[in-house]
Amino acid sequence: MAEVYAARRDRLRERAAAGGSAAVLVSRPANVRYLAGAAPHGAVLLLGKGPGAEGDVLLCGRPPGDQPADGRPDEALRIQVLDAPGGDPAVAAADVALSFGADSLAVEEHHLTVARHRALGSVAPRLRLTDLGAGVEQLRLVKDEEEISCLRIAAEIADQALGELLESILVGRTERHLALELERRLVDHGADGPAFPTSVGTGPNSGRGSHRPTDRRVEEGDFLSVCLGAAYRGYRCEIGRTFVIGTSPADWQIDLYDLVFAAQRAGRESLAPGAECREVDRAARHVLDSAGYAEGLAQVTGHGVGLEIDEEPQLAPAAMGKLDACVPVTVEPGVHLPGRGGVRIDDTLVVRPEADGGPELLTITTKELLAL
Amino acid sequence: MAEVYAARRDRLRERAAAGGSAAVLVSRPANVRYLAGAAPHGAVLLLGKGPGAEGDVLLCGRPPGDQPADGRPDEALRIQVLDAPGGDPAVAAADVALSFGADSLAVEEHHLTVARHRALGSVAPRLRLTDLGAGVEQLRLVKDEEEISCLRIAAEIADQALGELLESILVGRTERHLALELERRLVDHGADGPAFPTSVGTGPNSGRGSHRPTDRRVEEGDFLSVCLGAAYRGYRCEIGRTFVIGTSPADWQIDLYDLVFAAQRAGRESLAPGAECREVDRAARHVLDSAGYAEGLAQVTGHGVGLEIDEEPQLAPAAMGKLDACVPVTVEPGVHLPGRGGVRIDDTLVVRPEADGGPELLTITTKELLAL
Repeated sequence: MAEVYAARRDRLRERAAAGGSAAVLVSRPANVRYLAGAAPHGAVLLLGKGPGAEGDVLLCGRPPGDQPADGRPDEALRIQVLDAPGGDPAVAAADVALSFGADSLAVEEHHLTVARHRALGSVAPRLRLTDLGAGVEQLRLVKDEEEISCLRIAAEIADQALGELLESILVGRTERHLALELERRLVDHGADGPAFPTSVGTGPNSGRGSHRPTDRRVEEGDFLSVCLGAAYRGYRCEIGRTFVIGTSPADWQIDLYDLVFAAQRAGRESLAPGAECREVDRAARHVLDSAGYAEGLAQVTGHGVGLEIDEEPQLAPAAMGKLDACVPVTVEPGVHLPGRGGVRIDDTLVVRPEADGGPELLTITTKELLAL
Repeated sequence: MAEVYAARRDRLRERAAAGGSAAVLVSRPANVRYLAGAAPHGAVLLLGKGPGAEGDVLLCGRPPGDQPADGRPDEALRIQVLDAPGGDPAVAAADVALSFGADSLAVEEHHLTVARHRALGSVAPRLRLTDLGAGVEQLRLVKDEEEISCLRIAAEIADQALGELLESILVGRTERHLALELERRLVDHGADGPAFPTSVGTGPNSGRGSHRPTDRRVEEGDFLSVCLGAAYRGYRCEIGRTFVIGTSPADWQIDLYDLVFAAQRAGRESLAPGAECREVDRAARHVLDSAGYAEGLAQVTGHGVGLEIDEEPQLAPAAMGKLDACVPVTVEPGVHLPGRGGVRIDDTLVVRPEADGGPELLTITTKELLAL
């Protein structure tokens, strides 16, 4: 893996050099992890001029082994632990950049606070601070096969946890307990932990995006919506399903389910390298719009996943840009009828060209309307 | 509660006015919650000129009811939901401040990123942006009795969850399972959720600060360290205990336990209104130092708690400032011997004057060395 991280750093270094900056300071934790293999709390990564790991330093407030961290830092990286407790590794990095002979430093202005940026400027007034922008996020967009295989395992774990829940008795249990049970099962099956807080909504709470579980108990006749995901080696996936509790769903439940299913399928089927993000959103949204549910739809129908659960690209009406091959995204339209509940269906897929069989579905739990 | 939030906003308004700013923009989530009763995702709070809620606006990216949120926004507050999806409420707030006739706006430079700050400046170039600094954090330092009663309930919940765990069989179970079990019990007893990721360390992992649970199983003869906390109505407490597994602890275990216990007691007993934070740290640290454990001690022996689990004040060698009455803090010294394990004892207490009986212990689980 060391070569992978070094190669990523080299790509970033090239971009920054093209932008006129000799040294680069990465502070956003997911970006640090992407480039260094781990992001100890508060650590920042300084990239020097030379290629390879030489000159690159991971600056930490505390020794990386002394604290919880996903992953281990790339062994090829120099690690520098601050002497002074409570110091800011980003400020210390400015000093190191000066010692490299750098005259400019590209920083992540979308992550550094005004106060930290000012502190950097005042310890190293000779250093010209420029903006790296979303340089690392852009590198992170297209995943390599190693990353996709972590996502595939994360999705398998989520499928397993969900599958086991479906075999248990649900009526009478609270949303909160079902959510905790799912999170326990994720860990049982090898997840680092949940990829995000598990959402369980029943009855009037079903179908709402990122509903926080309450003490409402599952009742006969309810819709039950579940959205969960596993984190595996830092990579996060997402699956959402809606079920009916009891033997036979009501007609309105079947109709609403079929509609959301059709919308979600339309979104999935429009995933392809070169497809406009807003067209994917439109494909799913149009199905719900035409059925009269334009009001109250979520602002996005999907989003990228990776080291963070909500990454670029956004699948939304005003989204710019096109999809590439090897970009994992969710497709997750839903309809919620206030007071009655609703349906939400959510998969994680990897965009693949037609020649490779089209989009790769990572979350394979059935999307039939199950009556539990 | 509405009057409480309005009174907090008035105090902040007075401070900002004394600093020369007509309007105030609060963006840090815990600060928004403190002043508005809730912090919907991404929401910011704009304080206008007038007293009371008049002119104050909570700006949200989405309707507050559409998303998970702890608490409900103060009903006296005007709520403004952005029309454009993906917009930044902080940028919209700058426009609203101009419509108030404000010529300057105090912002949280320790929270706003450079990029957001610049966007604010460019939509409202006539608005002079000043720094609010840690104005809200300073107000949050001393808690009112309502806040302390939330902390007291949070501590009770943590004590109950821990107490139940102690009655179960521990040998053979993994750190990860014990941590999940504790978190489930926290929710069972009415917590919003865990106050922070529960830490369970056994054998060589025991006694490490914020150890992330692994798949190591509890064995006979192990030290077992547990650190957990409940969040209740947004308020977060912390308790840490160390136990021995098996019938009779080894001599080194008894000695180490007694030492850490003495250090923790020294810290607790030095809590008083007017005490220097660094003196409290020194009281606990000195006991461990003199026994030869100066190397490898944590940088802090305690910290404030409240809406965040790690707030001001810090109890550390270089900490400035004194304690006040009604400031809740943790006292949590520990010793970890690499390869062998260690002991950590952690309580949440409220600083109270001698006349009121001295420090109020919120986490009351016994600190005897239990053999489980």
